[in-house]
Formats: sequence, structure tokens, C-alpha cells
Amino acid sequence: MQIDLNCDMGESFGPYTLGLDEQVMPLITSANVACGFHAGDPQVLRRTLALAARYGVGVGAHVSFPDLAGFGRRELQVAPQELENDVLYQIGAISAFCRVAGVPLRHVKPHGALYNMAQRDEATAGAIARAVAAYDPGLLLFVQAGSVMARVAGEVGLPVAAEVFADRAYTPDGALASRKLPGSVIHDPDAVAERALRMVTEGRIIAIDGTEIAVAAETICVHGDTPGAVLLIQRIRERLAQAGVAVRPPLTAGAGI
Amino acid sequence: MQIDLNCDMGESFGPYTLGLDEQVMPLITSANVACGFHAGDPQVLRRTLALAARYGVGVGAHVSFPDLAGFGRRELQVAPQELENDVLYQIGAISAFCRVAGVPLRHVKPHGALYNMAQRDEATAGAIARAVAAYDPGLLLFVQAGSVMARVAGEVGLPVAAEVFADRAYTPDGALASRKLPGSVIHDPDAVAERALRMVTEGRIIAIDGTEIAVAAETICVHGDTPGAVLLIQRIRERLAQAGVAVRPPLTAGAGI
Amino acid sequence: MQIDLNCDMGESFGPYTLGLDEQVMPLITSANVACGFHAGDPQVLRRTLALAARYGVGVGAHVSFPDLAGFGRRELQVAPQELENDVLYQIGAISAFCRVAGVPLRHVKPHGALYNMAQRDEATAGAIARAVAAYDPGLLLFVQAGSVMARVAGEVGLPVAAEVFADRAYTPDGALASRKLPGSVIHDPDAVAERALRMVTEGRIIAIDGTEIAVAAETICVHGDTPGAVLLIQRIRERLAQAGVAVRPPLTAGAGI
Amino acid sequence: MQIDLNCDMGESFGPYTLGLDEQVMPLITSANVACGFHAGDPQVLRRTLALAARYGVGVGAHVSFPDLAGFGRRELQVAPQELENDVLYQIGAISAFCRVAGVPLRHVKPHGALYNMAQRDEATAGAIARAVAAYDPGLLLFVQAGSVMARVAGEVGLPVAAEVFADRAYTPDGALASRKLPGSVIHDPDAVAERALRMVTEGRIIAIDGTEIAVAAETICVHGDTPGAVLLIQRIRERLAQAGVAVRPPLTAGAGI
Repeated sequence: MQIDLNCDMGESFGPYTLGLDEQVMPLITSANVACGFHAGDPQVLRRTLALAARYGVGVGAHVSFPDLAGFGRRELQVAPQELENDVLYQIGAISAFCRVAGVPLRHVKPHGALYNMAQRDEATAGAIARAVAAYDPGLLLFVQAGSVMARVAGEVGLPVAAEVFADRAYTPDGALASRKLPGSVIHDPDAVAERALRMVTEGRIIAIDGTEIAVAAETICVHGDTPGAVLLIQRIRERLAQAGVAVRPPLTAGAGI
Repeated sequence: MQIDLNCDMGESFGPYTLGLDEQVMPLITSANVACGFHAGDPQVLRRTLALAARYGVGVGAHVSFPDLAGFGRRELQVAPQELENDVLYQIGAISAFCRVAGVPLRHVKPHGALYNMAQRDEATAGAIARAVAAYDPGLLLFVQAGSVMARVAGEVGLPVAAEVFADRAYTPDGALASRKLPGSVIHDPDAVAERALRMVTEGRIIAIDGTEIAVAAETICVHGDTPGAVLLIQRIRERLAQAGVAVRPPLTAGAGI
Repeated sequence: MQIDLNCDMGESFGPYTLGLDEQVMPLITSANVACGFHAGDPQVLRRTLALAARYGVGVGAHVSFPDLAGFGRRELQVAPQELENDVLYQIGAISAFCRVAGVPLRHVKPHGALYNMAQRDEATAGAIARAVAAYDPGLLLFVQAGSVMARVAGEVGLPVAAEVFADRAYTPDGALASRKLPGSVIHDPDAVAERALRMVTEGRIIAIDGTEIAVAAETICVHGDTPGAVLLIQRIRERLAQAGVAVRPPLTAGAGI
Repeated sequence: MQIDLNCDMGESFGPYTLGLDEQVMPLITSANVACGFHAGDPQVLRRTLALAARYGVGVGAHVSFPDLAGFGRRELQVAPQELENDVLYQIGAISAFCRVAGVPLRHVKPHGALYNMAQRDEATAGAIARAVAAYDPGLLLFVQAGSVMARVAGEVGLPVAAEVFADRAYTPDGALASRKLPGSVIHDPDAVAERALRMVTEGRIIAIDGTEIAVAAETICVHGDTPGAVLLIQRIRERLAQAGVAVRPPLTAGAGI
């Protein structure tokens, strides 16, 4: 039994530092690396890819709307063809640093507002899927199981990895509960680690209303921007290790690997 | 006997159109395509690569300082490591569109202020050469013969193509005469076509002081931003054709081809 | 009887030229000048303000979402406080060029996607109104009569000018008909000039369904990006002149004047 | 006897935080506020101006080359007219936030590479001086005494404040010693505080070669980006207070005040 731990990396920019990448990289198995549209720059990409290569972490393109000031968290109404090209541009840019670091590009994960739109909006999901498939149909797309993005990726034949959030509450129908609801973010490290374990080993989780629901979990999204977040990743790893669950990148038959 | 004709392409941006790409692409054999740093954007890249593919034109990355407002024509004091990464980023970005268009990336040409600095400055030339070689040591670098850039490219083993300007006057030592000097830009189409032909067939040109000098010519830089410029390319092609000179991309043993 | 003719100006950027500003400026009475967020740059602002000053044209800030690549035509979900500050920044920037050109800033008009959102969305309209009022409560806001923007401006005490579009069809309830509908854009210059005249002198227009509706018209939006558009402005002016309608900027008691 | 303490403020951007503005603002008398070209954004400007207003700190425009990725530390060869307009744009933008915060704009200080070029380069200094004088000839320009910038400001009639650096070594001719030289940055807080005091009360400092030189000191530049830097400002203030030196903004008869 195995699971992937993915985390956003390479979100520093110019003189600005964000995230504890040096501490987090050794603890994760997939890095979602910013490509310069919401964060990151060529210098940060070079450093981040070297760091990922050193620890054997799987590298993914964390593609975004072009919105540095808003950190890619603001929805932008981009025409599908434009979005497809924006995604291609970012995948290409990070691929150059993968090549120089001697590591393959393994996955793509939309960031922020683009991630949220892709889970629910057909046109957005289609643009992302077409860009990824056109570049390399072996690239894994990180998606929420049951989402529009998951379905659309399947339709164009892209392999996907089902992503879960161990520190977030779920609604009874398997969606993330809004951050505005009380109890939607789980802060107790032991509780988060336990949820992560049950998601992986049983494929089940207690939803926000107390009912038990099924979740597909191939990769767990973790955070790396505070000392507490780093400790949480360590706790999750310990709990998984105790239960005999291996932590490694998701399998893929991707041409890029 | 053969020669390459290269021209800047893909310099439109967002709502703005620059250059007569649709008219010029059928007339040239190498396109220096803007990568988004001084001009171009993902949409323009997609269209420009499709156009290059349609006419079998060799594609190059026209890499620049990050300076959209200044069109890459303003010198920027970038640390060599930063410049190396900026160049890598641009090569990667355009490569994604090459892949989707089904054409190889064949060459790299620095743009504007970066081009000028690279011909004379060791650190700038080194950064460009390292970026290109790290990405693909088979990529051709377009250089002025005798320049620092040409020497540095040779030192890292990069293949180069010697570039000449048929409509520009040369100094007796083989450099371009300053645009500020009277007579530095040649406007008569017949004179330009004749100079182009002599550069190719005899490797010689009359310098601005009347002396005859040797020039190495593997690719001629032409312009495509005015109707007159388009006519000039046609005149050059006619003159070369009359003399039996074939117009085709420069030969290379590049891994990327 | 009088009317204002407003037109977007200063939309060039860096090496890129957009609009026939030199031909159009003498024909209009209000210029909506791009502030660098969707178009324009400090050089273009300097030139455009000098041109407006030469012809005595009223200057307005054409404020936008920050989206150069999308020309401000893509909706962006900006938090109201952020939007308020983005608008303030742009008003401040253009004000420096007004001061140097010796002309007052007289009005503000949202651009593109921001204009459309402001007419219908309370939060967007509120952010714009607060920014304008905080900077100078005497600035005129150009609005569509009956819109959310018009109402919200009134609530904060901002003076407004009701804007009409002589070349666009209206729905029976006084809104602009979607550009996707056949007949939504009127191309015949005489018809457009006649509509402009009736809007001004009678406050009435034939809607897209043939019914006659009332419209409030204090400023007519015209375009200046094609030779045909310039001729159309001239036709409108001739028709207004024949009918004895004066063309001049809207009256305002603005503190900035 | 009095002296001004100036510090760079408002250098955060989007999701990125830089500087301990909340701790530093109460300790200084002049804030050089980033205007969005090298750092800062409309949100940061709004917050920073509110903070300056709360503590009665004099506000200045910290104008820069347009270079967010390089934090304005990279020299850019901008034509003087373009630079003049870039400076005007930034002064205008910050002025809107001054107006809303109810505080005057009092000074202008070039940032980073622009500061360095302005001290030695006539064309750069002239462009800055013309922009400031065109906007408001009462604005104070922060300059190094004896620099080209100081002379040029005088020629256009701009008031200046002579700036010194208490933690930097000086050459015998009164220039800053290169940061590459050993001993060029002074780290001992007591030594820095003592130097600050002597600069203010005696107008003298020990140069890097041990000779004593004269310095004109109307404002001392301090830093606010590390806890140690904050403590250093406090030490300087204590030492000045013990000696009876008042800390307040420089006097000016500026029209903007």
C-alpha cells in the first residue's frame, strides 16, 4: 500500500521568500512547482528543480492564471484557447529546468483559482486537459475524484491521480466543505494524520455532517509554508509509516518519465 | 551554394499587432520567434509556430531581457546566473509550442540590447552560451563572426551560424557601423540585394570607408515590419535565385532536429 | 442644447501603436485615457495628455483591471478593497500627467470588463465609487443611466454623466443589446448620426424590437481605432451641428476643475 | 539641533511580506515608500500611507526603474525622457494614497540602481530632477552631498536634503566605500550610533583610511528589514536623544506641504 504526498514549492519571487522549501522537500514525494505566472521566477525554478532532483521528488507544473499580484487566487475569465496556450507556456518553461536538472516532468496541477474552476467548469477543464495532452499525454493530472476535471481528463485519455486534503472537511457528497464553515479546516495534527491514514488504507472519511463517505486517494496535498505545517507533514509520515504505508510518487506510464 | 534568411517573427502582443508575419513567413527560412520577454505571448507563440510549420521555416528562440515596455532594446545589468536562467525559461516556453506544432527548435538568437551586449561582453555571452548548451548542445546560435559571442559559443562547443546584415554598412574591421553615421543604413533595394549576393558568393563587402573586407555569411538578417521591407526580401530572393544560390536553413547536426 | 463626445485614447504601449489619437483628439470633447493597467504607459500618457491639452479636450482616467495581455477585457474577481486601491493608483498616476500638462482631471470611466461589471455588480460599483470620491468628489463618473453604477455613484454623492452608444442597439428596457445578436451594432454612418441626434435632442431611441424608448444622454461614446471610425465621428458632428447642438464636455462643479 | 531618520517602507508585494514596517514606522521620521515599480502594490501603498499618517512620518516617493523581479537593483538604460515619465507616473500614483491618507507628499528618493546612477550620471539625475520639479518644485530630493544629483537638483531649483549612511564606511573624498571592501559595512550598533551622532553634531566622520572628513547630514538612512536593524534604529535614537538632538523630518518650504 502506498500514497503520494504533494506540496506547493518554488513560490518565492525575486527578493521575496515564501515557503520552507528546503525543509519540506525531503518530506514529500511530489512537488507542484510554480512556473512564474502566480509565483516563482527563472532563478527560483532553477533552485527548486535542483532541490527536487537532490531528494528524488517527482516534479509537477503548478500552472496558474497570469496574476502575480493576486497570487493566482483570483478568477480570471480567460477564453479556453488562451488558457490552453497559457498552460502550454508554463509547462514548456518548467520543462527547460527539468531538463537541466536531469529530472522528468511527471505531473501537472492547476493552482488556486484555476484549480477551483477546473474542478467545476467544463471549458476550463477542457483547456487544461488539451494543453497537457498536447504536450505529453503521459503526464499525470492531479484532480479531485468525481470532479469535472477528472472526467474531462479521462475523456482525452490523460492519466490522473486522485487528490485528497487530509486537513479539510468534506461534504457528504465528497466535495470540500467551504473554508467559511466552522470546522472546515482541521488543525489537530493527530486528527489530520489519522484522517490521512484512513483515506489511504480504507478509502473512507467522516464527512462534516458525521456520515462516512468514500474517497479515492492517490495523492495527499500538504502545505509547507509554516513551521507548524512542516511538523504536520512529519506527523502524517510517521502515522503512515507505523501502518506500513509507503510514501512515494504516484505510478504512471507517462512518456515523459 | 546556399544561404539562410532569418527574420524576427511573433512580436505581436495581446491586442497589439506588429510585423507582417503572414506575408513574410513564406519568404524566409529561419524565424526568430519572440518568447514573451520583449514581445509575444502564448497566443502569438501558438499562431507563429503554426505559421512556421506550414511553410517549413526553421524556428529559433529570440531570447531577450525581460522588458516588454522597452521592447528589449534597453540594456539591463543582469547577473550572469540570472541571465542564464532567463534564457532557459524562454527556450523552454517556446519549445512547448514547437512540440505542439510538430517542429524542432533549431536555433537561438539574442534580441535587441541582449544581442548587442552578447557580441562584446564576455559575461553576457557566457550566460547565453551556457543556457543554450545546457538545454540542447545541438542548437545553433546566430552570432556575428568575430564577436565575443562567436568565440564563447565555440569554447562551449555550440554550433554557430554567422549572421550578416545586407542593409547595414560595415566598418573596415568588420563590425556594424553605428546607425548614427550617415550611410550606415542602405535603403536602395537593388544595392542591398547586390550586397547580399556578394556576401554569400564571395564572402566580401565594401566597408563604409570604401575598402573591401571579408565577411562570413551563413544567415542574412532581414526585416518584416513594413511593406517596403517585404518587397526588399523578395528582391534579395530574386537576386540570389538568378545567381543560383539556394535559400534554406543553415545546416546543423543539432540533437534537437 | 449640448452633448459630449467621449473616446478611448492613449491605448498604445511601448513599441505598439493602437488608435488614431492624433486624428481623433480634435474631434472629441472628452478623452478616456488609459492609465497603464490595460494599455498605455508613462510615455504614452505624457504624449496623450499633451495632445488633449492642445485641443482643450476634457481628460478622464480610463481605469481597468490589471491585465495588459487581455487588454482589460477579461473579468477578474478582485476583492472590493483591492479594486478600490487599484482604481486609486491609476487615478493618481494619470493625475501627475494632468498636472504637468496643465489640465484638470475631469472624469473617470471604467474600461472593458470592469465597465461591464460595474454596471451590474454592487460590490464592483461600490469600490469604484469609493475610490473616485476619496480622491476627488467633484470628478464626474461616466455611467449608463439606470445601471447599478449610476445608482451607487448617486449614493456616495458623485456627479455622473449618462453615457450612450449611438452605434449600438438597445433592448426595450434600455440596456445594450448583446453584440452576439444580429443588428446589435449599427454600421451605417447616417443611421448612427441620426440616432445620436435623436438621443440628444429628444432623449429617445428605437430599441432593437422596434419600440421607442427613453434614454438619458449626456455623453456619446465614439471610437477612434479605424479610418472608418474617424469618419463616423465627423458625420455625427456634422449632423449635430446642422441641428444646432453644441459639442462640449459635460458640465461639472468638480473640485478638480 | 535636529536630524531626520529615513527608511525604505512599503516593499511588500501581493502575497509577499518584506520589512518590519509596523515596528519601524514609529521609530523614523521619513518613509521612502515603494511605488509599485520595484516593490509595493496598491494594497501595500494604502496600508503604508495609513501607517505613516498614524505616526506622523513624512512620506516620500521611493521611485525606481520598472523591475519587480530584480527589485530595482539592476541598472537599466532608459532614455532620459522615458525615465522622467516613469518617475512622474510613480509620484502620481503614490500621491493618490497620500491624498486619501490626508498626508502631504514631502520628498522623493530614487531607489537602488536608479539611486546609484543618479549620484554619478548627469542624464539620469536630470531626468529625475525635471520630473520632480514638474510635479511640485517644493518636493525635497534626498541626495548625497557633492553628487551629480545634488548639483543638478540645485540647478533646477529643487530643495535637497543631504543623506548619510551611518553604517557605511566613506572614502577620503566623501563617497561611499564599495561594499566589496572589508570594513565597508559597520555592524557594531554602538559604533554606528556614535558615527550618526558625530555626523549630525560635528559634520565629520572618520573615513575608511583613518582620515577625518566633513559630511553634510540632514537625513540618516536606516534599515528596517531585520530585528537587528530595528534595534539599531533604537540605539541611534537613544544616542541622539542623550546628546539633545531632535529627530524630525527635514524642513522644507515645499508647496506640497
